[in-house]
Amino acid sequence: MSVGSEQSQISVNLADLTRRDFPLLAEKACLGEQLIYMDHAATSQKPRQVLEALQHYYDHDNANVHRGAHQLSARATEGFEAARQKVADFIAAASPREIVFTRNATEAINLVARSWGDANLREGDEVLVSVMEHHSNLVPWQLLASRTGCVLRHVGLTETGELDCDDLRNKISDRTRLLSLVQLSNVLGCLNPIAELTELAHRAGALCLVDASQSLPHLPVNVAELGCDFLVGSSHKLCGPTGMGFLWSREQLLEAMPPFLGGGEMIQDVYLDQSIWADLPYKFEAGTPAIGEAIGFGVALDYLQQLGLDRIHSWEKQLTAQLFDRLQAIDGVRILGPTPEQQPERACLAAFTVDGLHANDIGALLDTEGICIRSGHHCTQPLHRHYKIPGSARASLSFTNTPDEIDCFAEKLRSTICFLRENS
Amino acid sequence: MSVGSEQSQISVNLADLTRRDFPLLAEKACLGEQLIYMDHAATSQKPRQVLEALQHYYDHDNANVHRGAHQLSARATEGFEAARQKVADFIAAASPREIVFTRNATEAINLVARSWGDANLREGDEVLVSVMEHHSNLVPWQLLASRTGCVLRHVGLTETGELDCDDLRNKISDRTRLLSLVQLSNVLGCLNPIAELTELAHRAGALCLVDASQSLPHLPVNVAELGCDFLVGSSHKLCGPTGMGFLWSREQLLEAMPPFLGGGEMIQDVYLDQSIWADLPYKFEAGTPAIGEAIGFGVALDYLQQLGLDRIHSWEKQLTAQLFDRLQAIDGVRILGPTPEQQPERACLAAFTVDGLHANDIGALLDTEGICIRSGHHCTQPLHRHYKIPGSARASLSFTNTPDEIDCFAEKLRSTICFLRENS
Repeated sequence: MSVGSEQSQISVNLADLTRRDFPLLAEKACLGEQLIYMDHAATSQKPRQVLEALQHYYDHDNANVHRGAHQLSARATEGFEAARQKVADFIAAASPREIVFTRNATEAINLVARSWGDANLREGDEVLVSVMEHHSNLVPWQLLASRTGCVLRHVGLTETGELDCDDLRNKISDRTRLLSLVQLSNVLGCLNPIAELTELAHRAGALCLVDASQSLPHLPVNVAELGCDFLVGSSHKLCGPTGMGFLWSREQLLEAMPPFLGGGEMIQDVYLDQSIWADLPYKFEAGTPAIGEAIGFGVALDYLQQLGLDRIHSWEKQLTAQLFDRLQAIDGVRILGPTPEQQPERACLAAFTVDGLHANDIGALLDTEGICIRSGHHCTQPLHRHYKIPGSARASLSFTNTPDEIDCFAEKLRSTICFLRENS
Repeated sequence: MSVGSEQSQISVNLADLTRRDFPLLAEKACLGEQLIYMDHAATSQKPRQVLEALQHYYDHDNANVHRGAHQLSARATEGFEAARQKVADFIAAASPREIVFTRNATEAINLVARSWGDANLREGDEVLVSVMEHHSNLVPWQLLASRTGCVLRHVGLTETGELDCDDLRNKISDRTRLLSLVQLSNVLGCLNPIAELTELAHRAGALCLVDASQSLPHLPVNVAELGCDFLVGSSHKLCGPTGMGFLWSREQLLEAMPPFLGGGEMIQDVYLDQSIWADLPYKFEAGTPAIGEAIGFGVALDYLQQLGLDRIHSWEKQLTAQLFDRLQAIDGVRILGPTPEQQPERACLAAFTVDGLHANDIGALLDTEGICIRSGHHCTQPLHRHYKIPGSARASLSFTNTPDEIDCFAEKLRSTICFLRENS
């Protein structure tokens, strides 16, 4: 990657700029075709800078953190805590003390449900989510409801496949204790107006949790501007290693929450029968953390910051327009969620069905042509039930995708559909 | 590593055999001295084979698992599940369905406490641990006690710093629901007679959890022979990446336990208000797992298996004997736990105090000479309180350590002690 004077242009071709940093994207597919990766919403590919950082850590600095004494441990701790600062900077958090490392965004939501939820919710209290939520933002609240007797309510969708804010206004009340929403849907691609909804939640006396797993890789996300109370994300969707995610919350809230997991690192003093918790954020990080993963994650965030989230979003908007243009031209293809005309900031992905065909058949045939899209429910079964469809095919892009890849994908999708229709 | 005909010898020099596989061990220390790493009980170093596997995964196969459709996802899933099989084989588990991936051993213990504990323990029920336990095997039970009203009881130590099995026999009763013990102490180095104690627990109607974090890297561990009900371990102590650990339990027990974290992967069907859980082991693995870490962990276990745990233990016994011999010859050094004469299978580590000196001073000065040992409470504050000491210094070895390193360590420890005595 070399970032130069192109910053003044509206939409820099970031694929040209970054492609050489991603070894996997040069991979040939099984049958010798060039691989086209369009499954970024499931996981991102990793630039070589991240792998070099992992290798460097293990070859030169590897040791356990925070337990002092020797130089390796000091270097490992420094790298680990520098990564925490990078996460804080990435979302404009006030302090690294507000960043709790977890395995993934899912664990971060569960942490809130188990710690804040168990301590604060009672029978009759309500948690408000939407029908577009990923399972990770549904099941933890279902489990919380079964433990506490709180009630889970669901906001519906508009005709265009966006969050129905009127329905939300009707359902939010003084019984609502938490509004928990995805910022950018992994299927509909819609961007929810979080700042506005957070205000609504706060006026009702509720807190607001934002699942930013899909938005963080594609848009600038600023927790102060969103005004939310909790925000979660995953490294593996952000060009970083697997095994790493985070919870952000305000210090005051985190201070008031009881610990989630117990063990080393999260304590200040342990007696046989009781313990005194460590300061933030360590109170929520039990056991040896994912040290190498944090360091790799930090380098991934550096990479994205250097490209610039504004430039990423701008380039991806161009790809989105092309993707929709090509797909809308194919007979029988129906895309879920708003079009770029309906919602200009929508995500650079398209989940779609094809009249009379199964999404899995489309995915499997495209795979033989080297095109990696995903088919199924994308961890959003209730959303698919809402549309009365068993699943959808989804092409999800990132800044590394090229206009040629989109054309190739559309062309092969068209011929796949013809083939399946002729043979069904 | 090349393993040949030396298998017939009693104690192969595994340091000679393996040293070149560990790039960090060739590192120079800050002041130009050769680094001597003796902090393996905190974390292991990683052979290049593990890093090559990580690099290969990210460069060729990286994708999200279990959500099918394309070739990358199929390859990632295959690698991830092959790693689970390797963990099962490493501990002689009956099936990979018995292996639940976690972030570390600590999370695995918390999983049991939250899932099995919350579902099964009531006021007055007892959990029996020992005073030598790591914080990870104390704090989760303290938190469980505060949630359920169950009682935490503690087995004491013998004069030689071993588990007091008579005390255990006195304290186990029909109120005991769980005996949770470390197999190999990270401070005393003692090996607890788990198979015998599991029988005692079962006769009392209790289950038995084994913290094998320290034993797995050094001895053959076989869950069928131990007869235990839960066993936990961490990749980062086993030459594998950070961010990865596991829980083993019997299928019948895991089947009966409610889920711990909710989200994608751990479900079969999600409705807005309820969900149906996935089969084992996925029921306990919410969200995108630590895929690269699992694959790296599998390769680390291959590495250890190829060396042979029997050969590792045999070589380390020789190092232990030398370590004790050298330390016992230094005036004022007092080693915690049994000597190799008192317990021949004890761990290849020595936690010690030096009369009149602070462990931290010793650690800090040795660090300036390039020797990485650890000082402090080693996540066992109750054990250090038991001995009425604020902390200890600990040199913990592995098969990569050489006899020369032990001599060098002892010599520099001796001169450090002289220096501190002269300057105090």
